[in-house]
Formats: sequence, structure tokens, C-alpha cells
Amino acid sequence: MNLMSLPDPVAVERVDALLSHLGLRIERIVSRGQASPAGFWYDQAEGEWVLVLAGAARLRFEDETDARVLGPGDWLDIAPHRRHRVDWTDPAVPTVWLAVFYR
Amino acid sequence: MNLMSLPDPVAVERVDALLSHLGLRIERIVSRGQASPAGFWYDQAEGEWVLVLAGAARLRFEDETDARVLGPGDWLDIAPHRRHRVDWTDPAVPTVWLAVFYR
Repeated sequence: MNLMSLPDPVAVERVDALLSHLGLRIERIVSRGQASPAGFWYDQAEGEWVLVLAGAARLRFEDETDARVLGPGDWLDIAPHRRHRVDWTDPAVPTVWLAVFYR
Repeated sequence: MNLMSLPDPVAVERVDALLSHLGLRIERIVSRGQASPAGFWYDQAEGEWVLVLAGAARLRFEDETDARVLGPGDWLDIAPHRRHRVDWTDPAVPTVWLAVFYR
């Protein structure tokens, strides 16, 4: 599967598992305007290294005032239990994420 | 560091470490026409999940007849000790790889 060959649009985020090995998971996530629900924060036991391959997003950490603006080639490492949310993804184009979850 | 902001051209492949955590390493590799030396095969103790972000490459496994042709969005998982080499990278444009090494 080529990561830039996208599935048909659906109402929810699409997640494809690319690799799973012991404590490691690599996923492709395709967002089409989705954001985290109001007031919702991810609080994950795993570390998450995340890269934007296409599109645009705003990711916010609870411990920071301003959202991080992310476009193609931008990446972040999210430490375990660092609370964060996706404030916005571009509704006009698919936002393609590569996420590496690790323990 | 944005992954698509490339350093100035140099004669060797450029490797930037993006994350290192226990048995996990994430690297960006920028090739500019480099290939593995004639007769050389990588034989790695680690698994390597590799994604082409830009450019073009041919990667060959010793146990396959034909090289894999890779462009943006193409990825491979290389099992530990599966012998492989890079037959070719495009000399005309930088080839940007994301490599996830794991144990």
C-alpha cells in the first residue's frame, strides 16, 4: 500500500496499521477535517512520534498556550501521558499522518 | 527540523537522528544518487521499516530477483538479517528516506 494512495472519504478518521512488533506500532492516519472532541485530551501510556505527510493540522499540548501548526515534513515526539489534542485538521484536503507508537 | 528542509548537497548520504529510545531509532536519510558499493549487502541485526518521502530509489533483496522500485509514499519492512542493498537512487533529485530501526 502506498501511503499517498488514499481511501475514499469517510466521516471518521481512517487508521491503517503498517507494522506491529512488540512495543512498536506504525500507523497511517488520514484525517479529513476531524478534530478531537471539545474538552478531550489524549493521555497515552505510549510515546508517539508523529509526522505529517500531507495536509495541515494544529496540535495542542495542554502544557502549552499555543497550538503547534503542522504541515508536510513537520514532526513531533509526544511523551507518554503528555496530554494533547488535535485542534484542527484542514477540511479542504486530506491530512496524512505517520504515527509511530512505542513503549 | 522540517523533514523536507534539506541540507546543502554533500558527497555522502546525510543521516539525521530524529528519535532514539531504547531499541528504537528514527532517522532521516537524504541520498543524492548514492548507492551501495558493488557487491555490498546490508545485514542488520535490527529490523528496519523504511519509507520514501521524496525522490526515487531501487532497493534489492538478495533473496529476490528484481529490485523494488520505490517512490514517495512507498514503504518496506526489512526483517533483521534479510540481506539487501540500495541499487540506485535518483541522481537528479534528493531521495528522502524515513527509517525506523527497531529490536
